[in-house]
Amino acid sequence: MQKNRKTIAKKQKHTKKSIHHAGKEKETAGLVRRDDFTILNLGEKTIQSPLTAKQNFVDDTQRVLYNIRLNSQKKVHSIKEIYKNSFEKSGPRKKIFFQPSSTKVGIVTCGGLCPGMNAIIYGLVRQLWNRYEVKNTIGIRYGYRGLSNNHVTPIRLTPQKVEDIQFLGGSILGTSRGAIAAKEIVDNIVKNKINILFTIGGDGSMHGALAISEEIFRRGLKISIIGIPKTIDNDIPYVITSFGFETAVEKASETIMAAHKEARGHENGIGLVKVMGRNAGYIAAHATLSTGVADLCLIPEVPFSLSGQQGIITNLVNCFKKSSSAVIVVAEGAGRDLFKTPSQKKDPSGNIQYRSESMDIGLLLQKEITKSLNKKKIKFSLKYLDPSYFIRSSAPNCFDRVFCTRISQNAVHAGMSGKTSMLIGYWHGEMTHVPLRALSSQLKRINPIGTLWFNVLESTLQ
Amino acid sequence: MQKNRKTIAKKQKHTKKSIHHAGKEKETAGLVRRDDFTILNLGEKTIQSPLTAKQNFVDDTQRVLYNIRLNSQKKVHSIKEIYKNSFEKSGPRKKIFFQPSSTKVGIVTCGGLCPGMNAIIYGLVRQLWNRYEVKNTIGIRYGYRGLSNNHVTPIRLTPQKVEDIQFLGGSILGTSRGAIAAKEIVDNIVKNKINILFTIGGDGSMHGALAISEEIFRRGLKISIIGIPKTIDNDIPYVITSFGFETAVEKASETIMAAHKEARGHENGIGLVKVMGRNAGYIAAHATLSTGVADLCLIPEVPFSLSGQQGIITNLVNCFKKSSSAVIVVAEGAGRDLFKTPSQKKDPSGNIQYRSESMDIGLLLQKEITKSLNKKKIKFSLKYLDPSYFIRSSAPNCFDRVFCTRISQNAVHAGMSGKTSMLIGYWHGEMTHVPLRALSSQLKRINPIGTLWFNVLESTLQ
Amino acid sequence: MQKNRKTIAKKQKHTKKSIHHAGKEKETAGLVRRDDFTILNLGEKTIQSPLTAKQNFVDDTQRVLYNIRLNSQKKVHSIKEIYKNSFEKSGPRKKIFFQPSSTKVGIVTCGGLCPGMNAIIYGLVRQLWNRYEVKNTIGIRYGYRGLSNNHVTPIRLTPQKVEDIQFLGGSILGTSRGAIAAKEIVDNIVKNKINILFTIGGDGSMHGALAISEEIFRRGLKISIIGIPKTIDNDIPYVITSFGFETAVEKASETIMAAHKEARGHENGIGLVKVMGRNAGYIAAHATLSTGVADLCLIPEVPFSLSGQQGIITNLVNCFKKSSSAVIVVAEGAGRDLFKTPSQKKDPSGNIQYRSESMDIGLLLQKEITKSLNKKKIKFSLKYLDPSYFIRSSAPNCFDRVFCTRISQNAVHAGMSGKTSMLIGYWHGEMTHVPLRALSSQLKRINPIGTLWFNVLESTLQ
Amino acid sequence: MQKNRKTIAKKQKHTKKSIHHAGKEKETAGLVRRDDFTILNLGEKTIQSPLTAKQNFVDDTQRVLYNIRLNSQKKVHSIKEIYKNSFEKSGPRKKIFFQPSSTKVGIVTCGGLCPGMNAIIYGLVRQLWNRYEVKNTIGIRYGYRGLSNNHVTPIRLTPQKVEDIQFLGGSILGTSRGAIAAKEIVDNIVKNKINILFTIGGDGSMHGALAISEEIFRRGLKISIIGIPKTIDNDIPYVITSFGFETAVEKASETIMAAHKEARGHENGIGLVKVMGRNAGYIAAHATLSTGVADLCLIPEVPFSLSGQQGIITNLVNCFKKSSSAVIVVAEGAGRDLFKTPSQKKDPSGNIQYRSESMDIGLLLQKEITKSLNKKKIKFSLKYLDPSYFIRSSAPNCFDRVFCTRISQNAVHAGMSGKTSMLIGYWHGEMTHVPLRALSSQLKRINPIGTLWFNVLESTLQ
Repeated sequence: MQKNRKTIAKKQKHTKKSIHHAGKEKETAGLVRRDDFTILNLGEKTIQSPLTAKQNFVDDTQRVLYNIRLNSQKKVHSIKEIYKNSFEKSGPRKKIFFQPSSTKVGIVTCGGLCPGMNAIIYGLVRQLWNRYEVKNTIGIRYGYRGLSNNHVTPIRLTPQKVEDIQFLGGSILGTSRGAIAAKEIVDNIVKNKINILFTIGGDGSMHGALAISEEIFRRGLKISIIGIPKTIDNDIPYVITSFGFETAVEKASETIMAAHKEARGHENGIGLVKVMGRNAGYIAAHATLSTGVADLCLIPEVPFSLSGQQGIITNLVNCFKKSSSAVIVVAEGAGRDLFKTPSQKKDPSGNIQYRSESMDIGLLLQKEITKSLNKKKIKFSLKYLDPSYFIRSSAPNCFDRVFCTRISQNAVHAGMSGKTSMLIGYWHGEMTHVPLRALSSQLKRINPIGTLWFNVLESTLQ
Repeated sequence: MQKNRKTIAKKQKHTKKSIHHAGKEKETAGLVRRDDFTILNLGEKTIQSPLTAKQNFVDDTQRVLYNIRLNSQKKVHSIKEIYKNSFEKSGPRKKIFFQPSSTKVGIVTCGGLCPGMNAIIYGLVRQLWNRYEVKNTIGIRYGYRGLSNNHVTPIRLTPQKVEDIQFLGGSILGTSRGAIAAKEIVDNIVKNKINILFTIGGDGSMHGALAISEEIFRRGLKISIIGIPKTIDNDIPYVITSFGFETAVEKASETIMAAHKEARGHENGIGLVKVMGRNAGYIAAHATLSTGVADLCLIPEVPFSLSGQQGIITNLVNCFKKSSSAVIVVAEGAGRDLFKTPSQKKDPSGNIQYRSESMDIGLLLQKEITKSLNKKKIKFSLKYLDPSYFIRSSAPNCFDRVFCTRISQNAVHAGMSGKTSMLIGYWHGEMTHVPLRALSSQLKRINPIGTLWFNVLESTLQ
Repeated sequence: MQKNRKTIAKKQKHTKKSIHHAGKEKETAGLVRRDDFTILNLGEKTIQSPLTAKQNFVDDTQRVLYNIRLNSQKKVHSIKEIYKNSFEKSGPRKKIFFQPSSTKVGIVTCGGLCPGMNAIIYGLVRQLWNRYEVKNTIGIRYGYRGLSNNHVTPIRLTPQKVEDIQFLGGSILGTSRGAIAAKEIVDNIVKNKINILFTIGGDGSMHGALAISEEIFRRGLKISIIGIPKTIDNDIPYVITSFGFETAVEKASETIMAAHKEARGHENGIGLVKVMGRNAGYIAAHATLSTGVADLCLIPEVPFSLSGQQGIITNLVNCFKKSSSAVIVVAEGAGRDLFKTPSQKKDPSGNIQYRSESMDIGLLLQKEITKSLNKKKIKFSLKYLDPSYFIRSSAPNCFDRVFCTRISQNAVHAGMSGKTSMLIGYWHGEMTHVPLRALSSQLKRINPIGTLWFNVLESTLQ
Repeated sequence: MQKNRKTIAKKQKHTKKSIHHAGKEKETAGLVRRDDFTILNLGEKTIQSPLTAKQNFVDDTQRVLYNIRLNSQKKVHSIKEIYKNSFEKSGPRKKIFFQPSSTKVGIVTCGGLCPGMNAIIYGLVRQLWNRYEVKNTIGIRYGYRGLSNNHVTPIRLTPQKVEDIQFLGGSILGTSRGAIAAKEIVDNIVKNKINILFTIGGDGSMHGALAISEEIFRRGLKISIIGIPKTIDNDIPYVITSFGFETAVEKASETIMAAHKEARGHENGIGLVKVMGRNAGYIAAHATLSTGVADLCLIPEVPFSLSGQQGIITNLVNCFKKSSSAVIVVAEGAGRDLFKTPSQKKDPSGNIQYRSESMDIGLLLQKEITKSLNKKKIKFSLKYLDPSYFIRSSAPNCFDRVFCTRISQNAVHAGMSGKTSMLIGYWHGEMTHVPLRALSSQLKRINPIGTLWFNVLESTLQ
């Protein structure tokens, strides 16, 4: 096992090569092996769940298929194969691992703000208190930093303390970026006598959670680490939609409509909107589909050029002819090859910083478009909108609140049953258990020849 | 074939017995036979699609699995079985049936208002015009009545005419309930020289569309009938989420929060909210999950009583003790057995009328709760909110606009390729083709022992 | 003085005859006499205000003119006259009456819910705590009932307790209707050692506050009673706009737009919306102006008939001819003369109940329109929307939050300086002090020949 | 008269010295002389208004007082004085100047986008068409540029063309900045045979309108120029609230709440929001009051320093101690003295450009705060939000839609009655007529020792 984990650790750094395309039509060969989808358990479940008989307990053998597409022209996967590529289904277990009355739970929120963080906290606290009668829950302050030796005191979380927070943006616990050594974190988990730690965070934080759970294994402790994947970009593999994403699309749409009004309000008006999406253009794509007013959608997965027949400038000139205006939606990670000396500056979480001026695709487009149109002596009016922080700090919309409720309910079931080193996934409408180590074998990107991107092209006609 | 259809017609009236439960854990035996999922085509596709090479054309053999759950303890379905229970995948076909330049398209909206109707119209018109260059599209006025002998003149639909309507509630074409004979409708379709008719409507309208397409077959005409399922209750089978549903949940949530404020604002305050859901409680369930403030969620699928240990009144008294307030969310079709002489009064579409006072579960609850609490000498303040029309006429939210865009894009692909007697389904994140006749073999309801309902119970603790 | 108050008390019951018309063009003779606008003080202000030198203290002699319209054709008011008809300006006083460190404050919310109640509580608590360092504030539960002998224990109010509540609808203190004897209330004020009581309530509650302050005078106590006028109908005299009103108009507008969509969505569709307004049609008028889609606006101040050349039915038929649809906005108190046996049923606050079916103008219009159009054999589809509770429980909008902040800041200044038996008014953009006894001499109604109503007629063309 | 106007023209450039402070307590000596408030008329009103008898016609002698505050300690203004300082009241006149059937109207929108521009267009077109039956209205494209020799063809405006636009942000006519010579504009007005021109624009556009009307007088033409003051900053004198302002405050509030969430979500988090306000801090002040979460509000009218006891940095450090977070709201024109070499770069309308990086107070604060806190070795996380374009392009909120309806109704009355060289003002709740030339004699700013600013300080405690 140890070896296996090391291998994975290596892969994390070098080989993110198998790209999972949501919406893809063709199978990529060499999916994660079945054993990769096996969930680790802290031990045998011996305690009777306090949940009453009303519900339908879920068995560890119930699984959710990874792939749902068939093609009669191709050789069919064997049943065994199909079986292997499936996730453990989440839900309440009849027998659980932790004794509710003596269980202490910690909740930590990491990385940038994302709509729904408070709704997750609300859901976890309520589910623990009301269903399992776990009354000893603490909120770690300011991300993993709250589990460092130099931390702000955690706060006690009760249903009263979290009243109404499901409707608020931000995180009442606070968050931070930056790596703390797994050893130091485990020391503090132990000091705090935490039995289950719910980690709400992005890709980086999930890798942190993996390192923490490995350190816990190493020490032979019985502490459960349950991840709740938070990615406003929606780019965590095995998670079709992540919480906060739909809210982000909604807010991005509003900004696109603002840009549209600015564009239409001026002769040859250009509304340029930069939305989030470092590696995956999901927000840009969905927001484009939701408004129907964008003329160009630019995402990291699909390269583009400024000049030439297919270039941005030609496109703009055509838009001016048609409607005397144009709207461009660009994901922050798009067009990286356009930067001559790509910055490698990273933020404390290890993400490349695209907001620094020299790497801001929005500012680059603004500059280049201005230069090119001036050269062509075309009068225009360009307005650049960057709604990033406005989106991240938004209150979760109704869809995300439903989603957060269900994620947190299932996360608690997983934790109480002694599962660990896993995250709550979402696949084909079902909540699932996904091993943290599986994240490193895949990337989630928009498939440039898949349905979603095709629908976007049908909307923009770019 | 003819015989087959007649058999189905019979089944429609008598045998709606196999209930499909979204979220169910166990397979119901005897799923729809594979041939039921075969899509009818008007003829051979001989015309080259005008769509350019950028996209990934979809083949009729590509299919989407019906079932995604596995249980190793049970005998596994054979591959053949799995294959049979799958849907044709929607998307652009390389060869199409209709010659774009000579194709005339009609669009009709039927039944009650539902958020997104205008977004669908917008999407259809734009897709036809921009992608297939079909420029002859008409909007039928006021539902099927616009295809009766006594109709209001249709209006011409162009991209300019539909500008910005994707953001508007209602239907610019107008709608109506009520059956017009299929013969009369086909006469008028022929008179209008319509080649493809897009019918946006609910269960009743889809059965109407089936009758229309059968009449068309009988006459040997080459007219395509493509259904776009509209059900704010979200109860059409083979359609996991229907357009307008998420908006309805959002608006219902706002009303629940109003009821919550009224309840909390008074000593022993009760906020009672009736939401839509004649046969299926999806809106009630999702809206309950989205707010976290409801103490009781009542749906048609789960019977309940007023008195007794488990009854509503006991529940309310407990709520008063805990928080001096209570919020009840009730679907309009819930608690039918509580009415002594159940009304059989139907509206022109054939739906039982639950709004008439003698069948309004909200008014009944209001009356019964008042009576019981008065008898117990408990002072209280009950506020009853019925947001129905407010919800139906809402503008589609962002999620629904994305969804409507994709439905309408795919509906146009289906129609142009000569498919008919089908509707656009949505299954596990994929757009699919579902034969209209398949609707009659299944009902879509919340599974009382399934995940969704379980999550609701975890939220209300009822 | 005592005598004077008795006289006023008599007037309250019998002589509400002088109607103040906001927006009127002509002066009504016999305005309230100047002495009526004199504010009572508990005693000499001897304590130095703790507020620092930054601000501009306001002097009791600074006043705000009642009337701002002039007409050269008429004889001009003498300067003395102009002076008399003016209000004391609110704001911080240099010397105050209460010693902050030993002052105890009570806050009570009465009557129906209204957007902004929590924002007022938030503002009062913050202003007391932060500016005057009054740290002993309690929240009375469930209206005046919380000052009865049979009350729920008050809660302590601190800035932390009220965090974020400015954005919430409802009242965290709860409210109730119904009269409690002034003597009983004063007994409990004394028992609670309250020095200043802030009463947030409507017309009825303000008369209650007057009675309380009279009882306090009778006992020779030094307790300040400061009213904060709450009237969603906007019908309290000397208060041009009351908090919550703008939010109510916004929410009513949304309902009108829903009705508009329903009306346009059907052949001869009628959208009928009942909004609040027992005696004054301000919400109906403003909501009509805000949408531009209403064809008829019906208010208590302007009688109307169903039949006849100018009647509702003729109007509807004309609308059908023009646009095949009609939208009617009706204030709940409109058309009272249409009820044959006008109910005198009152709610616990003494307001006539218009919601009982026999007095609901919306239901009456629905019935009468249906009868008349059926007789004329005109097919139509009428949808009736009654958003009342949805509106009352709304969160305050931005405008109202600004307004609530300023009211509560000024209310605290007034209370601390020892003023009493007054309410915070709003006149020509200035916060003012209005004696509670002045309320009884005037009514605030829309002037049927004034500007506002004229603007409404220009919008509806009725 | 000619001379007088020249004098004013001179004053425009040099002497903007008398500052009008909304909310001021003390009279500024030397108010605009009475004759300055006299409205010019094109000629005698000889035509009977087509408006029916229902309404209350307004007489030119009806006036609205400028000042409503009194102070008994000071010498009272004479009645004559009071009279002089009053505005002509707007509204329908019994006799009008233009014959409706032969009147042609032009509408032009100038300057930056502002919420409500479309609502004004909607209101003007409907009022002209429905009330005066003026059916010949054209929309000038892209601001005054549409009246230059090199213009885009105007579009015909009918009630159908403007349907639903009252709810849309932006301007369907388009807008532009930049001066066109008055002569050229008048040439084109004449060429287009326009009788009445409604100019919707800001300070610059109103001065343009004054120049146009002077050129018209010079040529002896009978063309009416009616201004509709558009200033999102709310800084046009004699206009207490301008359309779009309340929407801007609402949107700015939302951004402040986003900043607040970011600030609270991080250890020593700083949320920095720049809002509009070149010379007047009204948006910053109102948005601060509406949220209650800002710790610092910085406006052009009140200087501030970075360092020192009262400086920003000290303030921030105190905030960190109290709540580990801080929110700063800064108006774009604040802290001009902090720039070493103040840019004089102007946009085409003549406004100094504060968006250029070297003049952006937000960027300067970000840089300086970062430098200072780094020097103090205080860890922090600063997020800078600049919602400018998002705000300008917003749809008008309900309050602004009511307001726009009333402005446009009254603007049409003014134009039809032959008034000219004026704008529609708003004063103490009344619509008024203000001569364009009066604008140059006053500035509208927040009074640093007045009520509004005092209320802001009570909210921020800065």
